[in-house]
Amino acid sequence: MGLGGYASRVAESMQSCKRAKITGLISGTPAKLDEWGAKYGVPEGSRYNYENFDKIKDNPDIDAVYVITPNALHHDQVIRVAKAGKHAICEKPMALNAAEGEEMIAACAAAGVKLLVGYRLHFEAKTLEVVRMRSEGEFGKIKFFQGQCGFRIGDPNQWRLDKALAGGGAMMDIGIYAINGARYMVGEEPIWVTAQETKTDTVKFKEGVDETILFQLGFPSGAVASCLSTYNMNYLDRFFLNGEKGFAELQPSTGYGPIEGRTNKGKLTQPHVTHQTQQMDEMAGIILDGNEPVVPVDGLEGLKDLKVIDAIYRACATGERQELKLV
Amino acid sequence: MGLGGYASRVAESMQSCKRAKITGLISGTPAKLDEWGAKYGVPEGSRYNYENFDKIKDNPDIDAVYVITPNALHHDQVIRVAKAGKHAICEKPMALNAAEGEEMIAACAAAGVKLLVGYRLHFEAKTLEVVRMRSEGEFGKIKFFQGQCGFRIGDPNQWRLDKALAGGGAMMDIGIYAINGARYMVGEEPIWVTAQETKTDTVKFKEGVDETILFQLGFPSGAVASCLSTYNMNYLDRFFLNGEKGFAELQPSTGYGPIEGRTNKGKLTQPHVTHQTQQMDEMAGIILDGNEPVVPVDGLEGLKDLKVIDAIYRACATGERQELKLV
Repeated sequence: MGLGGYASRVAESMQSCKRAKITGLISGTPAKLDEWGAKYGVPEGSRYNYENFDKIKDNPDIDAVYVITPNALHHDQVIRVAKAGKHAICEKPMALNAAEGEEMIAACAAAGVKLLVGYRLHFEAKTLEVVRMRSEGEFGKIKFFQGQCGFRIGDPNQWRLDKALAGGGAMMDIGIYAINGARYMVGEEPIWVTAQETKTDTVKFKEGVDETILFQLGFPSGAVASCLSTYNMNYLDRFFLNGEKGFAELQPSTGYGPIEGRTNKGKLTQPHVTHQTQQMDEMAGIILDGNEPVVPVDGLEGLKDLKVIDAIYRACATGERQELKLV
Repeated sequence: MGLGGYASRVAESMQSCKRAKITGLISGTPAKLDEWGAKYGVPEGSRYNYENFDKIKDNPDIDAVYVITPNALHHDQVIRVAKAGKHAICEKPMALNAAEGEEMIAACAAAGVKLLVGYRLHFEAKTLEVVRMRSEGEFGKIKFFQGQCGFRIGDPNQWRLDKALAGGGAMMDIGIYAINGARYMVGEEPIWVTAQETKTDTVKFKEGVDETILFQLGFPSGAVASCLSTYNMNYLDRFFLNGEKGFAELQPSTGYGPIEGRTNKGKLTQPHVTHQTQQMDEMAGIILDGNEPVVPVDGLEGLKDLKVIDAIYRACATGERQELKLV
């Protein structure tokens, strides 16, 4: 659902999938439905628009819908997918805020369908190796995580810079990687957050659209995280995890190209697989075969990030530390 | 003054100096005075203890005194040096707080002597190359600085972990590098600071001795800094400066060994010179020849860092952002 730029990347990557397959299309643009339908062999009967896609409930070729639309649309669309009896994969951020996220989880539970969030890095080999090393104690007690996520965004007219469609700015799009990364790298749920916003371009980044936010997370063990979310800097994309006995550095840590990294034990050498190919096959396994991923990708996982985002925006607005209750 | 571990490093380094020379010694330990006096050729008449060192005023062989004692002693000792008519070099942090720093500056001004602070990195070649590139606009408009400074401190009984002598914990010793680095790397004076403290070892790090503090600085241009100060993590010592057109990364950025770094234009290749050798010759040039360093090392420079430290401790105590007036 939503045949834009990122959906194109997913669709191309899925051509190498073993378990996942494009069996339906949803778009508001008839020409895209024709083009994609021909390209990926999706028959006309499995092509839908935003008015009629509830009819997927009668289509046995469709098991799940990957919602890849602007953030503000996720809530209603996922609930419609659930009501049509299909599993939902929702691109991150799962919704505009935690309240929406909770409604989506409830709707999917009520419909008896799974809700997954498009956290492709949860299946990425170097990332998972660092998670394994941390969970097996190879870094010792974890003390610190740093996530620097951002890039200089281009076209000022894109939906990502429209508060009504994006629900915010860099934090909703790229900052969430640092939040999510902090949680799976440290291996704990944060209990507080502080945040500071700065804006150097008020033309491009209008009211409610964050350009740059620094935020800090505190964890029950006393570990802390220091993160950067920005739409106005390049040369970032670094994760750094520090423990009493070792460290891991991933740079790039979240981009689509190969993730590169090292630990105190040396360079990470796990082979690169196109993230979206890996993700879609793994998600097919979760949906169709009941597989359990090492790092969760379910609605609750998405909701936790939304709770942190809500708190970050409150912290920016008030200047006050926000307590978190993710579990 | 103060013939401890760091003074030994300075004294050894000074054997390669061209302009600076050890011509006097001040210590509370007679055996050290004998040993150092013999080793460095300092006659008995130029050896002093903490009771009688005011007599240096009558010693024409002494131009300046490098005060390398616990932080809590700097204020009174520098003022005594000034009153003896000698220039003072004071190890960082210059004092326990800004109020002390202001008194030291006033005393040196009244006595007509110079007051320098032991910022050895202000003379380090790779650091200065990054400062040059930034000041000539090679990184474009500066957006972000990150300073991660810390190490796991050893002996729990050392003066650095004694609030009365150190005035604090990691921030006074190693965190100040991130403050100072943020200022000379960004090339502006910060106008606000926020900070968050975490303590995982309350035995080693007693009341008033900070283990780990995250802090953030805001600059007039809208640039921000995100820093870490800790006595309980290794694998740090990284500076990262990010601008619209390029970046610089120094790692290690503050240690005694060679500083290593790269920018968007490639690896920094300036040759390593022992920091303390370079520092002492440069400081001799400032004191004796009236040279002006590229990055200041005077009392005002030290005072600015103390003002930030005072504000960081207030921010930790109150949870509130502190406005800064450094200029």
